[in-house]
Amino acid sequence: MREKVLQFIEEKKFNDLRIYLQSVNSADLPSLFDELEEEFILVIYRLLPKEKAAEAFAEFDSDIQEKLINGFTDKELQSVMDELFMDDTVDLIEEMPANVVKRILKNIDPADRKIINDLLNYPEDSAGSIMTTEFIDLKENMTVEQALHKIKRIGLEKETIYNCYVLSASRKVRGIIDLKSLVIAENDVIIKDIMETNVITVSTLEDQENVAKMFDKYNFLAIPVVDTENRLVGIITIDDALDVLQDEVAEDFEKMAAITPSEDTYFKTSVFKHARNRIVWLIILMLSSIVTGAIITKYETAFSAVPLLVAFIPMIMGTTGNCGSQTSTLIIRGMSNDEIALKDYVKAVWREFRVALLVSLMLGLANGIRIMVQYQNLQLAIVVALSLVGTVILAGFLGCTLPMLARKINIDPALMATPVITTVSDMCSVLIFFKIATIIMGLEVNF
Amino acid sequence: MREKVLQFIEEKKFNDLRIYLQSVNSADLPSLFDELEEEFILVIYRLLPKEKAAEAFAEFDSDIQEKLINGFTDKELQSVMDELFMDDTVDLIEEMPANVVKRILKNIDPADRKIINDLLNYPEDSAGSIMTTEFIDLKENMTVEQALHKIKRIGLEKETIYNCYVLSASRKVRGIIDLKSLVIAENDVIIKDIMETNVITVSTLEDQENVAKMFDKYNFLAIPVVDTENRLVGIITIDDALDVLQDEVAEDFEKMAAITPSEDTYFKTSVFKHARNRIVWLIILMLSSIVTGAIITKYETAFSAVPLLVAFIPMIMGTTGNCGSQTSTLIIRGMSNDEIALKDYVKAVWREFRVALLVSLMLGLANGIRIMVQYQNLQLAIVVALSLVGTVILAGFLGCTLPMLARKINIDPALMATPVITTVSDMCSVLIFFKIATIIMGLEVNF
Repeated sequence: MREKVLQFIEEKKFNDLRIYLQSVNSADLPSLFDELEEEFILVIYRLLPKEKAAEAFAEFDSDIQEKLINGFTDKELQSVMDELFMDDTVDLIEEMPANVVKRILKNIDPADRKIINDLLNYPEDSAGSIMTTEFIDLKENMTVEQALHKIKRIGLEKETIYNCYVLSASRKVRGIIDLKSLVIAENDVIIKDIMETNVITVSTLEDQENVAKMFDKYNFLAIPVVDTENRLVGIITIDDALDVLQDEVAEDFEKMAAITPSEDTYFKTSVFKHARNRIVWLIILMLSSIVTGAIITKYETAFSAVPLLVAFIPMIMGTTGNCGSQTSTLIIRGMSNDEIALKDYVKAVWREFRVALLVSLMLGLANGIRIMVQYQNLQLAIVVALSLVGTVILAGFLGCTLPMLARKINIDPALMATPVITTVSDMCSVLIFFKIATIIMGLEVNF
Repeated sequence: MREKVLQFIEEKKFNDLRIYLQSVNSADLPSLFDELEEEFILVIYRLLPKEKAAEAFAEFDSDIQEKLINGFTDKELQSVMDELFMDDTVDLIEEMPANVVKRILKNIDPADRKIINDLLNYPEDSAGSIMTTEFIDLKENMTVEQALHKIKRIGLEKETIYNCYVLSASRKVRGIIDLKSLVIAENDVIIKDIMETNVITVSTLEDQENVAKMFDKYNFLAIPVVDTENRLVGIITIDDALDVLQDEVAEDFEKMAAITPSEDTYFKTSVFKHARNRIVWLIILMLSSIVTGAIITKYETAFSAVPLLVAFIPMIMGTTGNCGSQTSTLIIRGMSNDEIALKDYVKAVWREFRVALLVSLMLGLANGIRIMVQYQNLQLAIVVALSLVGTVILAGFLGCTLPMLARKINIDPALMATPVITTVSDMCSVLIFFKIATIIMGLEVNF
């Protein structure tokens, strides 16, 4: 697409370009603009059909938005701001530098400016910060015909008209009705008789991750947001919920890989910032592996007497770590899907214990046989097999306990995942292995 | 909720229970039924308001569905099947044992049976297997009034009416129009003049994960599915896309933790199956850590001479593994979000090289200083610092290369993640560490 557009520009065929751009889906424009040289951005934006341009603007990367706004005349800026929904305007303002924000606010209708200021005041991860105030409100005693008439009149400016909210005089939510029911109903039916009165709402301060999960559970297209007095102040639509879900997943993946989560995408993050996001956890984990090293040093006499023991350290440590991260991943996912609750702790530990017993017996047996075949050393075979049973069961216990403990004391369980559990299990596994080895082989320990 | 329901039953207040159930949101019924004893399931289901029962049925767990169907009379079964949308019917049939499927098919209208058989024939992860055939089709020359009239007549039985499809006589997609545009438009406008002609469709055989991602990109509520001759055969709605996205994320998490992905939730999976899902990878990873052990054995003379070297094995291995999984997680997520393409390989490697250089210099310096303070051993400080620089850079390279190589040869990159990379980097890190140690410290190696 980019090549085609650049060719039109090179050949100065601006009218052909304008026609070509009409056939481009507006959802494909953000990636096109991302790849364009800075000088062409404004030219091409001005060639777009008006409503397509407005639709695409909200989806552009913030650096493209900034360049466009800096190139816009006041009139252009005004017309873009008129087209943007409130939630997108708020997103935009949060991303722009102060001087651009000033210009934006100057070009917004004063009534809207008040609403936007209110929206900007909600805490970062709250429902209030992602809601929009453009919804359809109806009254209980309206007929279907009156309701459809109202929707026809004001619907164009609303972010969604598929869920309509029936409000009392004090703007409390009395019911909800979807456009499907309105279109299917007869004209003279009263809204009150067909609306759903069993309305699920969220508060403005609700965590946006919880709100996003409700879309999955209830198959909603939008969720109404109410203030402390139960008055409707906004709605959250499914497209914004989808974005929140994607962000949360990305954050979980990063935390589980011991990376400080970042909002930027991979290539948009500078090398320096990448390094900063990773070094903190690496240092913490390194310090703890020094403890593991210290444990090993304690058993120097043991492995000086039987150097072969050292060769089994990576296997014991690796297997324990892998078992721990298997368990913790399943527990963390289960908690984030609301399948596993804190009250299920004993049930989960008991399940993990049985799984670990099965798995460790198999691994222990396999290793014992291998050692007998390779080294004909029964003592070593018993040491390794017993160590595996002990460490794998411990890993299952840790993988289950640490994430649930984290949840209990309100720390994000994902932080406890792979690296932390691996490190804790590293220490324990080395300790168990050498302890069993010194006992069975009758080796000395130096203190 | 469960306690309340059980209390009604115990006190035999069935009428009160019926009234109470009316106030329960149908999205909360699946979790209620999950917790009920088997004997109450059918009783309570029969007390539900009819449409609520039908709505909830599709969302029940398959074992609840099976118990209900086994308790249903043929008439009850028929009325449930009438209410289910095609895609939910297909899901149900795929989950049920043969004898139940037989009874279901017997109680489905013959015309529907044909459609269901067609849907069952699509490959498991294809768009065809999750689409529904219940959509609104309009004609180009209809007026808005005629269109709304048709929607009013047949809309109730359609899964969504918010996207309507404008078809030619041969059922090819000419355009798409959303209900919002129809409701807002004047009655005598011709559909052709206001429909969107730039329609994005997917083929029946398209991978459902790709389809699900399109919802995120294009903010669709539904996507039309066409056959090889471009005729519209079904639509996929956003609720099903959301389920696919959730499943894919769960699968990625499991693969990255070296677990064979499973479709069941944590507590629904038996202990034996849990063990089976984990043991395969554990054995593979164990075998490879035996190689690491063998490498260490090769350097027995070295660590017999300087036993302190052994104490640094966990730190070097751990740090290398953590760096590798940080990089691979970012690369895998970037690829799955379509931010990183194969053509970006050199760009990504170069970026990772610089990040690794920064990170490893910091880690190396910190360690060098610590060793000088603790042991006053300059040689050891240099060995550890140099090893860290070497292994961390290698980990960055592997974490970048292995997932992209996997994508290149059409293996799932997530399989390459944490455990595989950790294991490969384990071997390399031990090798690099002892190699550097023997050279700098002038130690012997036994071959």
